[in-house]
Amino acid sequence: MKAFVTGAAGFIGSSLVDRLLADGHDVVGYDNFSTGLQKFLATARRNKRFKMIKGDVLNATAMGEAMEGCDFVFHFAANADVRFGTDDPRRDLDQNTVATFNVLDSMRALAIRRIAFSSTGSIYGEAAVIPTPEEAPFPRQTSFYGASKLGAEGFIAAYCEGFGFDGYVFRFVSILGERYTHGHIFDFVKRLREDSSTLTVLGNGKQRKSYLYIGDCIDAMLTAINSGPKGFNVYNLGTDEYCEVTDSVGWITERLGVKPKLEFTGGDRGWIGDNPFIFLDCSKVRKLGWKPKLTIRDGVLRTVDYLTSNSWVLEARS
Amino acid sequence: MKAFVTGAAGFIGSSLVDRLLADGHDVVGYDNFSTGLQKFLATARRNKRFKMIKGDVLNATAMGEAMEGCDFVFHFAANADVRFGTDDPRRDLDQNTVATFNVLDSMRALAIRRIAFSSTGSIYGEAAVIPTPEEAPFPRQTSFYGASKLGAEGFIAAYCEGFGFDGYVFRFVSILGERYTHGHIFDFVKRLREDSSTLTVLGNGKQRKSYLYIGDCIDAMLTAINSGPKGFNVYNLGTDEYCEVTDSVGWITERLGVKPKLEFTGGDRGWIGDNPFIFLDCSKVRKLGWKPKLTIRDGVLRTVDYLTSNSWVLEARS
Repeated sequence: MKAFVTGAAGFIGSSLVDRLLADGHDVVGYDNFSTGLQKFLATARRNKRFKMIKGDVLNATAMGEAMEGCDFVFHFAANADVRFGTDDPRRDLDQNTVATFNVLDSMRALAIRRIAFSSTGSIYGEAAVIPTPEEAPFPRQTSFYGASKLGAEGFIAAYCEGFGFDGYVFRFVSILGERYTHGHIFDFVKRLREDSSTLTVLGNGKQRKSYLYIGDCIDAMLTAINSGPKGFNVYNLGTDEYCEVTDSVGWITERLGVKPKLEFTGGDRGWIGDNPFIFLDCSKVRKLGWKPKLTIRDGVLRTVDYLTSNSWVLEARS
Repeated sequence: MKAFVTGAAGFIGSSLVDRLLADGHDVVGYDNFSTGLQKFLATARRNKRFKMIKGDVLNATAMGEAMEGCDFVFHFAANADVRFGTDDPRRDLDQNTVATFNVLDSMRALAIRRIAFSSTGSIYGEAAVIPTPEEAPFPRQTSFYGASKLGAEGFIAAYCEGFGFDGYVFRFVSILGERYTHGHIFDFVKRLREDSSTLTVLGNGKQRKSYLYIGDCIDAMLTAINSGPKGFNVYNLGTDEYCEVTDSVGWITERLGVKPKLEFTGGDRGWIGDNPFIFLDCSKVRKLGWKPKLTIRDGVLRTVDYLTSNSWVLEARS
C-alpha cells in the first residue's frame, strides 16, 4: 500500500507511520506541526519509503497535491482535545468536520477510495447503554469535539454510499503509550514533577474512563482494515475494562514514587461536556481476531515511564 | 417572541413567518433568495411587525447583525435537496452544517439561546427499526444531505450542553402543501402539464415514503416549542402512515384528470442514497397533544391543487 497519513507527526499518526514502514509500505506523511512533533518522525525519516510534507488539512489544494499517487488515507489530523470545545467551537468544526470533508473530496478527485478515520467514543455522549455498542441508540452530543466527529463520520458514510469508498471509522477510547502528549496522565505527571505535594483532580475522581494502549490500537485498526468488509465500517476500540480517575492517579503516583495530597474540584464531571462513564463494547472488532495485549494499568504505567524518560515532551507541549 | 427566521422566503420558512405574524409575534426574515421566492412574502410584507433582510447564512457577520434583538431563531435555510448530493457534496457541508454552526455561534455572541431547526428523517439512513423512533440505533448515513444535517444536529446539541441553549430539532418527513416548490409532486405535475401521455418514475415505484402537510408541520413545531422541555430536544414529524410512490402518482394523475403511461426506471431506489422506506414513529410529539389534521392523500391533493392554480411556481423553480 502507499499510505497517506494526516496528522503524521502526532501521537497516533507517527506511531502508525512507523508501523506501516516496518511492514514494508510506502508512506506519505502530512502534518502542519501545530501540535505534531518533528522528533516523532526521527525513525521514519531514516526510511527511504517515507516522504513528509508539511501542510494543513484546511488547504484542500495543497493536500490534494500531496495525496496524489497514494491508495489509502489514514486521516488522523484533528483537534484532539475534547476538553476545551467551549473556548473555541469553530476549531472543532474546521479542524474535524471541514478538514475531514476536504480529505474525502480530495480522495474523490484522485479516485482514492479507502480511508481510515480516528473517531471517538465521545460521540456516544452520555450513552444510554454501557458497555456501548456501535449501534447504540442515536446519541445526544455533549461536546463540540463529539459533534464535529459525528459530522465527519456522516460524510465518510455518504462518500461510501455515493462514491463507492471503503471507510473504516474507529471510535477510540483515550489512547495511551509512547508519544502520548495530552490528557490527564500528561497533566498529572507534569504537575507532579513541579510539585509532588498536592494534586488537583477535576471532578470527584469517580469518573469512569476507558483507555487503550497505542500498540493495541494500531493492531486493531490494521486488523479491521485487512479483514473487515468493504463499504462503510465502524469499530469501537478499547479494552474490556474501565477504571476510575482515582485508580489512574494511584498507579501514576505509585510509579512516580510520590504521595501527593489529592484535592478534588468536585462534581461528577471534570468539565462541561465531560462524560462521567465511558466504556465501549468492543466485541465487533474482537470478532475479527484482535485482542488487546495490555491492561489499562499496564498502559498507564508505560505512559508514565515514557513521560519520565522523555521529559522533553512535557516541555514541548506545555 | 421576536423571531429570526432563516430561509424566510422558502416553503416552510415563509409559511412559518405568516403563522408567527398571525399569532402576534415580531419576525425578522433572513434569506438570500437563491431558492426562496419574493411572492411567498407578499402577505408578511404588509405586516408592520415583519422585517425582511436579504443575506446569506454563510455570511456570519451580516447574519449576526440581522439577528440582533431577536430572542428565538428558526433556522430553516438549507440546501433542501437530498437527491443531488453527489453532484456537489460541498454544498451540503456549507449550506447545512457550516451554516447551522454560523447561526449557533451568532446566537451565542448575542446571548440568544433558543433555536428550532429543520432536520430530516433522512438522517436515519436505511433505518433498522421502522417506524423509526428518535432513539433509533445509531444510523449509517446514505446521503450528503443526511450527513450534513447530522453534523448540524450535533452542534446544536453541543451548544445546548455547552452554552445552555434550548434546541428543538425536527426530523421531518417530506412536507407538502401550499408553497411546495420541489420534490416528486412538483416534478410530476410539471412534466404532466407538458406531456400527459407518459410519466417516467424513478425506481420501481414501490418506494414507501411518508409526507406531512405544511399546516400540520407548523402546528407540531409550535406545540413542541411551547410545551416541550428545555435543553436539547428532538422530535420526529410525520403522519402515522406511508404510501408507495405509485399511490401518490395515482392521486396526482386522478386529480389532474390525466392517464399517462407509467415508465419505471427500475430498481428499488430512485437515486444514489434514496431510501426505499421512510416511516417515522411520531409518538413523542403526539404525546405533547399534537396530531395531524390531514392524511397523506389529502396533503398530496392540496399540493396538486396549489400547483395547478399557481402555475407561476412551476415556472419560477424550473
